[in-house]
Amino acid sequence: MRGWVRLLLPSQTQSLFLPIEADLREVEKRIERSTEVEPLLLQEALRHVMLAPGKRIRPALTIASGRMFREGGASLHAMAAAVEFLHTATLVHDDVVDQPELRRGAAALYTMVGNSVALLAGDYLFAQAAATASETNNLRIMRLFAESVMTLCAGQIAESARGQDWCGADRERYYSTIDAKTAALFVLSCKAGGILGEASFAQTAALIRYGRQLGLAFQIVDDILDLVGDEAVMGKPAGSDLRQGVITLPVIYLREELSDDVMREAFSGGEGREQAIQMITERARTSGAVDRAYQEARELAAEAAQCLDELPAGEYRDLLMGLTRTVIDRDA
Amino acid sequence: MRGWVRLLLPSQTQSLFLPIEADLREVEKRIERSTEVEPLLLQEALRHVMLAPGKRIRPALTIASGRMFREGGASLHAMAAAVEFLHTATLVHDDVVDQPELRRGAAALYTMVGNSVALLAGDYLFAQAAATASETNNLRIMRLFAESVMTLCAGQIAESARGQDWCGADRERYYSTIDAKTAALFVLSCKAGGILGEASFAQTAALIRYGRQLGLAFQIVDDILDLVGDEAVMGKPAGSDLRQGVITLPVIYLREELSDDVMREAFSGGEGREQAIQMITERARTSGAVDRAYQEARELAAEAAQCLDELPAGEYRDLLMGLTRTVIDRDA
Repeated sequence: MRGWVRLLLPSQTQSLFLPIEADLREVEKRIERSTEVEPLLLQEALRHVMLAPGKRIRPALTIASGRMFREGGASLHAMAAAVEFLHTATLVHDDVVDQPELRRGAAALYTMVGNSVALLAGDYLFAQAAATASETNNLRIMRLFAESVMTLCAGQIAESARGQDWCGADRERYYSTIDAKTAALFVLSCKAGGILGEASFAQTAALIRYGRQLGLAFQIVDDILDLVGDEAVMGKPAGSDLRQGVITLPVIYLREELSDDVMREAFSGGEGREQAIQMITERARTSGAVDRAYQEARELAAEAAQCLDELPAGEYRDLLMGLTRTVIDRDA
Repeated sequence: MRGWVRLLLPSQTQSLFLPIEADLREVEKRIERSTEVEPLLLQEALRHVMLAPGKRIRPALTIASGRMFREGGASLHAMAAAVEFLHTATLVHDDVVDQPELRRGAAALYTMVGNSVALLAGDYLFAQAAATASETNNLRIMRLFAESVMTLCAGQIAESARGQDWCGADRERYYSTIDAKTAALFVLSCKAGGILGEASFAQTAALIRYGRQLGLAFQIVDDILDLVGDEAVMGKPAGSDLRQGVITLPVIYLREELSDDVMREAFSGGEGREQAIQMITERARTSGAVDRAYQEARELAAEAAQCLDELPAGEYRDLLMGLTRTVIDRDA
């Protein structure tokens, strides 16, 4: 059985997740069972997106946050599966919106089944997430779940509303975007674990803050890797965000070193666009902008680590502590 | 206040809904409050789709089904709003998939805000529906809610999987499609009302069957109107379903009278397509196919009416009885 779990976990997180390996296996079983549905087209779509190798960071957050306080059980496994369904639903819809060809190194779902079926499969996954969360028999969690999705969507619409306005993009706006887009789901994952573990108010507050800072750090590193990561390891070409008109923290810092002409070109629909994007990604490799962004991610991860002081010591807290390092030191 | 509600209800349903007018007003207030969100783009999108004149049949089903057994209250109003949010979410995503220009006589949302924001606004509405349903504090309802959405999406993916296979389309397949697409939400609306009203098992079963038969009848009439309805009243051109490659019950019957060539042409991407579609819609006006489909809808509505025998007599049951007539005798 171990070998099978190993397949799903990149090596870095593998040893870190050892204390919750049995729980994660239960989560995987749930996820696999959920794909056994009709029609076949839906089944194939679900298998493609749910059974692809993934980090499973969000389920791990839920499990560790819950087990810190109580034995694991069906409710905790259900909630851990629910956050992964929800995360995958957002990826499927993101890809319908942004139209990248690859996702986690494999074909994006819409390229295989078309935009319409991908949209419906995403809807199905949202509902699957809600149905699985309802297995916790916990109304507070159901409400938290629905409200997190609302935050997430409102955040993405706010990002859309801003459009490709590269002049107006600043640090504050960037943080507000990734707070809604990424950190909200990390918070949900941790907080739901705490609720199911019947953590105290102060402990739940610490978990929420931990999840938020970790989520922000995670997204900043994601954005750095998109710009300067190894394409072979990432499974997608460098500069994908730029191509989609998304301005990330390292680019905000890079902008201080680059001419407005290059930036304007990179966010235009003009012929020089690809060249400008390549110029930016090359410059990023030698500029201090990436280091500055990394430094911020490290500070956020350190803040996340500090929150753990208020939580019970032990292997589950160690796991959460380990995550504050691996979200920074990773190459994909 | 009355005048304001009147604006939202087509005249036919207006008098029918009199016994639940105060409840529907509470539902409208909830719906209106839910649009007061940021960012502005989301607010505008929500106002466009949620505050447009609509029949509000699904909320009325929930209210009447619940009030038949108990006083109305915040939970019933929340659930009634939730089914309308859910219904609207599916319409918004349907329009992203099918790309019609009009919806209820107004511009389809995606034509105003683009496919991406429309997709995200639909996601937001799904979450809003779940959040509002959670206000019932009833886990059974939450689960029912999520499972209904899964049924709905799986049904639509099944329809997509079949594609524009006009040869293979038959009655059985049509029913299976509209069962998932339309009847599932009518069933949810009625069943949730029954659960909140603490109806007995037999009464809830009667409500479920009523909702299902009514939903099927409703969809058949919708499909007939799409084919032969008055374009001005409908707010969209006749034959929209054909243009989207959807084969409905009247067309299945019409096919027996038409040559394969015309059908093939209507479902092709060829130049003669529009002409073939017009030929079909013209033929539909004089053929017996539409009558046959109407007859089936009438039988389903009569079956729905029969289910009401098992429910407590009174103004709420009368309302449900009235709906079995108005779903048939309507022009839009």
